[in-house]
Amino acid sequence: MEAMFTVNNLWILVATCLVFIMHLGFASLEAGFVQRKNVVNILFKNSMIISIGLLTYFFIGYNLMYPGDDYAGGFIGAFGVMDWAAGAIPEVDGVVQYAAAAEGGATYTGYADFIFQAMFAATCATIVSGAVAERVKLVPFLIFATLFVAISYPITGMWHWGGGWLSEMGFYDFAGSTLVHAAGGFAALAAVILLGARRGKYRADGTVTAIPGHSMPLAAIGVFLLWFGWYGFNGGSVLSADANGVSLVFVTTSLAAAAGGVAAFFMGYILFKSYDLSMVLNGILGGLVGITAGADLMSGGEAILIGMIAGIIIPLSIVFFDKTLRLDDPVGATSVHGVCGIWGTLAVGIFGASAGMGQLVTQLIGTLSVGLFSFATSFALFSILKATMGIRVDEEEEIRGLDLGEHDMHAYSLTKEDGVFQLTDSGSTVVR
Amino acid sequence: MEAMFTVNNLWILVATCLVFIMHLGFASLEAGFVQRKNVVNILFKNSMIISIGLLTYFFIGYNLMYPGDDYAGGFIGAFGVMDWAAGAIPEVDGVVQYAAAAEGGATYTGYADFIFQAMFAATCATIVSGAVAERVKLVPFLIFATLFVAISYPITGMWHWGGGWLSEMGFYDFAGSTLVHAAGGFAALAAVILLGARRGKYRADGTVTAIPGHSMPLAAIGVFLLWFGWYGFNGGSVLSADANGVSLVFVTTSLAAAAGGVAAFFMGYILFKSYDLSMVLNGILGGLVGITAGADLMSGGEAILIGMIAGIIIPLSIVFFDKTLRLDDPVGATSVHGVCGIWGTLAVGIFGASAGMGQLVTQLIGTLSVGLFSFATSFALFSILKATMGIRVDEEEEIRGLDLGEHDMHAYSLTKEDGVFQLTDSGSTVVR
Amino acid sequence: MEAMFTVNNLWILVATCLVFIMHLGFASLEAGFVQRKNVVNILFKNSMIISIGLLTYFFIGYNLMYPGDDYAGGFIGAFGVMDWAAGAIPEVDGVVQYAAAAEGGATYTGYADFIFQAMFAATCATIVSGAVAERVKLVPFLIFATLFVAISYPITGMWHWGGGWLSEMGFYDFAGSTLVHAAGGFAALAAVILLGARRGKYRADGTVTAIPGHSMPLAAIGVFLLWFGWYGFNGGSVLSADANGVSLVFVTTSLAAAAGGVAAFFMGYILFKSYDLSMVLNGILGGLVGITAGADLMSGGEAILIGMIAGIIIPLSIVFFDKTLRLDDPVGATSVHGVCGIWGTLAVGIFGASAGMGQLVTQLIGTLSVGLFSFATSFALFSILKATMGIRVDEEEEIRGLDLGEHDMHAYSLTKEDGVFQLTDSGSTVVR
Repeated sequence: MEAMFTVNNLWILVATCLVFIMHLGFASLEAGFVQRKNVVNILFKNSMIISIGLLTYFFIGYNLMYPGDDYAGGFIGAFGVMDWAAGAIPEVDGVVQYAAAAEGGATYTGYADFIFQAMFAATCATIVSGAVAERVKLVPFLIFATLFVAISYPITGMWHWGGGWLSEMGFYDFAGSTLVHAAGGFAALAAVILLGARRGKYRADGTVTAIPGHSMPLAAIGVFLLWFGWYGFNGGSVLSADANGVSLVFVTTSLAAAAGGVAAFFMGYILFKSYDLSMVLNGILGGLVGITAGADLMSGGEAILIGMIAGIIIPLSIVFFDKTLRLDDPVGATSVHGVCGIWGTLAVGIFGASAGMGQLVTQLIGTLSVGLFSFATSFALFSILKATMGIRVDEEEEIRGLDLGEHDMHAYSLTKEDGVFQLTDSGSTVVR
Repeated sequence: MEAMFTVNNLWILVATCLVFIMHLGFASLEAGFVQRKNVVNILFKNSMIISIGLLTYFFIGYNLMYPGDDYAGGFIGAFGVMDWAAGAIPEVDGVVQYAAAAEGGATYTGYADFIFQAMFAATCATIVSGAVAERVKLVPFLIFATLFVAISYPITGMWHWGGGWLSEMGFYDFAGSTLVHAAGGFAALAAVILLGARRGKYRADGTVTAIPGHSMPLAAIGVFLLWFGWYGFNGGSVLSADANGVSLVFVTTSLAAAAGGVAAFFMGYILFKSYDLSMVLNGILGGLVGITAGADLMSGGEAILIGMIAGIIIPLSIVFFDKTLRLDDPVGATSVHGVCGIWGTLAVGIFGASAGMGQLVTQLIGTLSVGLFSFATSFALFSILKATMGIRVDEEEEIRGLDLGEHDMHAYSLTKEDGVFQLTDSGSTVVR
Repeated sequence: MEAMFTVNNLWILVATCLVFIMHLGFASLEAGFVQRKNVVNILFKNSMIISIGLLTYFFIGYNLMYPGDDYAGGFIGAFGVMDWAAGAIPEVDGVVQYAAAAEGGATYTGYADFIFQAMFAATCATIVSGAVAERVKLVPFLIFATLFVAISYPITGMWHWGGGWLSEMGFYDFAGSTLVHAAGGFAALAAVILLGARRGKYRADGTVTAIPGHSMPLAAIGVFLLWFGWYGFNGGSVLSADANGVSLVFVTTSLAAAAGGVAAFFMGYILFKSYDLSMVLNGILGGLVGITAGADLMSGGEAILIGMIAGIIIPLSIVFFDKTLRLDDPVGATSVHGVCGIWGTLAVGIFGASAGMGQLVTQLIGTLSVGLFSFATSFALFSILKATMGIRVDEEEEIRGLDLGEHDMHAYSLTKEDGVFQLTDSGSTVVR
């Protein structure tokens, strides 16, 4: 009893570490995909998002998302600070009551539950930060992120994981293709629409300018770290260290990511006649987002199919948003998280143990409901911020870069060495 | 019995991995905060420190720090190589005697204990390496690091964790706000005083020149990896996988880090009227150092308060050392590890389960004793090295950079590509 | 029973995550050691190798390597897709039959076994990718990697770990000094011989040009991540969470890595009269490769000796291949993985619990057999590819860089900021 409880709890905590490092993954990926002049801004946003996310989840999000049985079938949870007393397994005469906890259905402590879920919450806002990069004003964005993580994410999260109406309806989203990724992706879409494209991206003559990221190594580091962290994101969502469950999830997660990468490689070549690293990296992420809703339900072959389809979707979706809709999303967050999030959610109705037309319809209702709610909340929040504080930096700042405009610093400072050549950024004082 | 022992032992080993990766965190952070011309030197130092640290802890540090019950209440431990025979749980007829081990109070093997503690030891010297960056001579520094890790850290560590006099006195330092961080921070302070400031830092007219780090992405990667590793640093210090204990430590550690980041954001804005990424990153670290002494004793609100205060201290302390005392510490190690280490130690007497005036006084005695001993040892070692080998590179080498001077190589080599532009570092042969 | 099974299985999965991150380690290390114009190519190759590796291991590699008892003592395994049904521990009436599994000798699920082994397989091809960097054509290399991971690696792997003829003979290779590292290193050697050196490396007058890597921070990040991942590589190879076994492996792995770094520091200084970061980094890797065959058999002192000797071998071997044999291996893979792989395998016959002349001869037979088979397969595959598609990019592409030639993109794009200075790569459109 004690040993099982301890190993289950330990896995949730190790998974928490892994989900935490996804925040470095996002920070690296987004930093790599933006221009050199906006890198500090991305790093600043992502450092703040994880910090704000953890604090707001403590003060409001956790109870809003997991309000307990009284709220079963409902639309909104409870308000209140995390109940610290309920975090630990009770002790009687210094002996921890594992048996009592297990009887109540717990496989890990309330503290572990809180911190694992808190790491998820912050992810959702991070997805948005990539899409709005290179032109959003810092403070309005942080206000948005705070409100989105504190209120919108826990409300839609409660619908399924908190025992709300989607849960009663039979909706299935194992680790959050919809609840985390589509929620984030649709919030990003609203933000991108209201913000407008980066200056120079869409020209008057109809041409679309590619604005390459400043560092592919950073982007690749980001994707590998995200993949690494996804083992905690999906594996921890088993909510125990159950040997069959977690092992299966590791296999399906790995195979879907791999299939996403390989499919995006071929699709990228077919579309662009080149071996496009960005596509492969986003294909891997698409495969990961795609398997997330049903990682515990699929066979190996199904996981590969889901990943492959995600990898095919990625380049098509990115081109569709970028060229057809002319929506400027520097990191492809709407495609990776929004579109593949929907795909993964629907895949639960098509493949695996739960497949069936009824399930497919439920999945569609669920993913669209969450997507629309996130979109609407995000649209409303950004509209208010736009009307009051403004959400976009001015033209001069966008040209000079947000690093100088918002932070008065450079991401890199290249200095003269040994008299050969001097490349000095203004603002930085070079000692010679 | 067997299962509990195995899961407890496993957590110590996983925590060991996490503490190991903090060495990459330090290496990245310090490399990011120095100038481009001194990056190889930082990476070299940090690669050597972890290597030297592990070996010396095997040969001398472990027994000096954990000498066993005979040394209870003492000031110095035993000399000798780690006792290999005592590392494993004994077997009888091929059956491992978990019951006997548990009876003896063990929750994990002696090997696991050694390697977990060895990872801590090397941390302490790494803290110094950031503070002395950009002007210290390599070989004298490595000699210092060897002696400091081999002798000074285990002596002060023994005072509390090894059952020495501070332990008997009731001093409390859960995971090392004092024993690791303040010890490292005060050693750094001694080194900075003896070394002097980087050339050009403090000008004759009284002005202070900011010398910006060369790569904010590296610095941010460093801080996220340190936060990641801190889950092992604090979580492993529970010394078992106890569900309540480790879960609580994860929550307090997370909240303190987050609060440190947010507080430093506001404080940085108040002081400098800009959104200063370095301050937020150091605020996160300050929060982590601050919670370390009492991570197992605090409630969520207390953890947030401790982190917040650390986040407020950081910019004030950095300005105080840099502008008022005119002590040049390129990465802010004295503030992050020294000052916040003291703060975290004192916080145990102010907040949480052990709060009280008596405890506060004990905490003050403990942190000052360790700080002063570390300062004195470090001052003595560096003074001897200064008088014999010299501890500072000559002026020409400092200007050219330590990468060329000490290592004859560049951290980066930018080469002409496709005829557009050529930026070649001297020394590197570019093939065209 | 349930708890032991769960904790054993959990460790295999956590170790899987750690081995996964080694792929980021290899990607970073290799990217750091190549020139700036070939970085995207390296990242692309390594992203594809992990993806291809996982998929082929699912479809063919796993059964080829672990064909079951019927193939005991054999030379080649079975063909077929991983048997999904055998992945999970069977349930009877919803109760998982841990007891039955344990009776059958299992300490973890078949899924966990598959995914842990799959991560190993991809490693082997990654070792080659560094050695062929900066001049190999992308598609032929990916074809090679696919066939090598799908067929050659599982065949030689089966000889020992799959119960084949080397296993019957008493050959010992705990975690793969031979089966993974020497296999990869000798495949790399064949590739290097057939490919030829990079243009400008060996001049007509006999001089050898050093071509420095473009980013030492990336290289150092790579080595630290590899060391981090090695705890899973070696620790997971215990194939359970056995407290004595895994703890011992952590200690020997750590001490050997540290000793490798320190020995390479001294040896590098003796040979080159400078403090060579590349040598220290490769010395650490050499120590890790060296301890891998016998990480569970050695004492601390023996681990240090094995690591030290590996650290001494590294600079000698690199110079021997580079200067004497004039074989151009940009990252030193043949020395680190090939030569130290042999050394580690032989060390099992010299040091530790299994030492003895008989064992040494067996070790020699085993390592040479695997090395030669890998070399031969790799030589044959590359020869066929050379005769049909060609394996080397043309001269113009090599000069311009593979990033532009194969991928039409740059790894970095430096743009004008604030009017100070403009460094723009051709091909990238800079928005102003």
